[in-house]
Amino acid sequence: MLSNFKVILVETSHPGNIGAVARAMKNMGMDQLRLVNPKFFPHADATARASGADNLLKNAIVYQSLPDALADCQIILGASARDRTISWPSLTARECAEKWLAADYADTNIALVFGRENSGLKNHELDLCHFLLRIPCNQEYSSLNLAAAVQVVCYELFVASNQPQPVSVGDLGTEPLANSEQMESFYQHLLETMADIGFLHPERSKSIMRRLRRVFNRAQLDTKELDILRGIFRFAQNHNQ
Amino acid sequence: MLSNFKVILVETSHPGNIGAVARAMKNMGMDQLRLVNPKFFPHADATARASGADNLLKNAIVYQSLPDALADCQIILGASARDRTISWPSLTARECAEKWLAADYADTNIALVFGRENSGLKNHELDLCHFLLRIPCNQEYSSLNLAAAVQVVCYELFVASNQPQPVSVGDLGTEPLANSEQMESFYQHLLETMADIGFLHPERSKSIMRRLRRVFNRAQLDTKELDILRGIFRFAQNHNQ
Repeated sequence: MLSNFKVILVETSHPGNIGAVARAMKNMGMDQLRLVNPKFFPHADATARASGADNLLKNAIVYQSLPDALADCQIILGASARDRTISWPSLTARECAEKWLAADYADTNIALVFGRENSGLKNHELDLCHFLLRIPCNQEYSSLNLAAAVQVVCYELFVASNQPQPVSVGDLGTEPLANSEQMESFYQHLLETMADIGFLHPERSKSIMRRLRRVFNRAQLDTKELDILRGIFRFAQNHNQ
Repeated sequence: MLSNFKVILVETSHPGNIGAVARAMKNMGMDQLRLVNPKFFPHADATARASGADNLLKNAIVYQSLPDALADCQIILGASARDRTISWPSLTARECAEKWLAADYADTNIALVFGRENSGLKNHELDLCHFLLRIPCNQEYSSLNLAAAVQVVCYELFVASNQPQPVSVGDLGTEPLANSEQMESFYQHLLETMADIGFLHPERSKSIMRRLRRVFNRAQLDTKELDILRGIFRFAQNHNQ
């Protein structure tokens, strides 16, 4: 369902781009727009470029932080043009559309996160994502305009939403997937546990945590699995105390 | 070949859109831009929105009429959002890319004609076209921004021009994946750890282990990640001992 997809713009500088994004979304039948700390919003440039998609701007929700905007989302994709030092699972826009529009995800909120015009998403923001979202393009000139990037992704979703959906073979069980808020509590608990058992080298904790996030984001925990793992953490913390 | 494709803009009103088209084209490895009677060109707004694709603007050819711009083109596609009274053969952007990028057309000039921002192409201009070029979209709000439309079409051409690169969800970078023997040792170690910290309920161990196997099998650990997790297990086992 296209309404499961939330387009989240992080710290957009140019309000015209917000309007152009709203238009691009509405052209493709999408209407869930979230803004994290936009520099200027609402703004006349946004309304002008929205060109009839004003209702998306009117209904856009503004958040103070990316984690707030992601709190109810179970699957998080972060748009990225650059290669990162630690490789992260990535999907093209088309793969994303084919994968997440399957019927299994009818009750799943899926975030499509787009960063700043000039610098994209920061590493700590990408750490919140399960997948990098990639748009195939000319590697020598790979920075798409923000609204152009949203246009391509929403276009792929629209095309996929109009095709018969194959029966998914994904074995997700019956438990709901953990949402972002639950996963952040999970990672916080993991971090505390590692500190409590003396494993954590403070100077290495960032890269270790990034690797562990990669593992568990890849696994896409459901809430039951998350409860089991947190149960293990609690026993490890209290072991012999 | 992408260079066979000529993007032709007819009587564009806003020079910023010409710049945005140049950027969209260059993002997708295309560089043949033709302008028929642009209202303002060259123009500072075009250069600003081109954002590094100035070379396409510099090399753009300006024509006085659409037939002039089409003179050396063998196949002509006209972008159209509207249904026409006389039905005309039409192709979607994807069908266009799949059809005309075939090797048979290596020596063929193919025109992609985009009309005015507000009114598109006139009927006498569409009469020059072999096919209507359609972008699937929300039929209740079907007018894409000019540069957004060019972006989608060029994106489809770029994708079709590249062998689809299999991007695996389990793209794990440079560490080798753990093999089955390593994973079995890992699970054994996990089981022992859970027993040592007092977590394991013997009567429940089978179903818990099955769930945990499902989590870590899904994650497809590489050997480095496996080492980190086993390091954590060791610390949990020895905690306060």
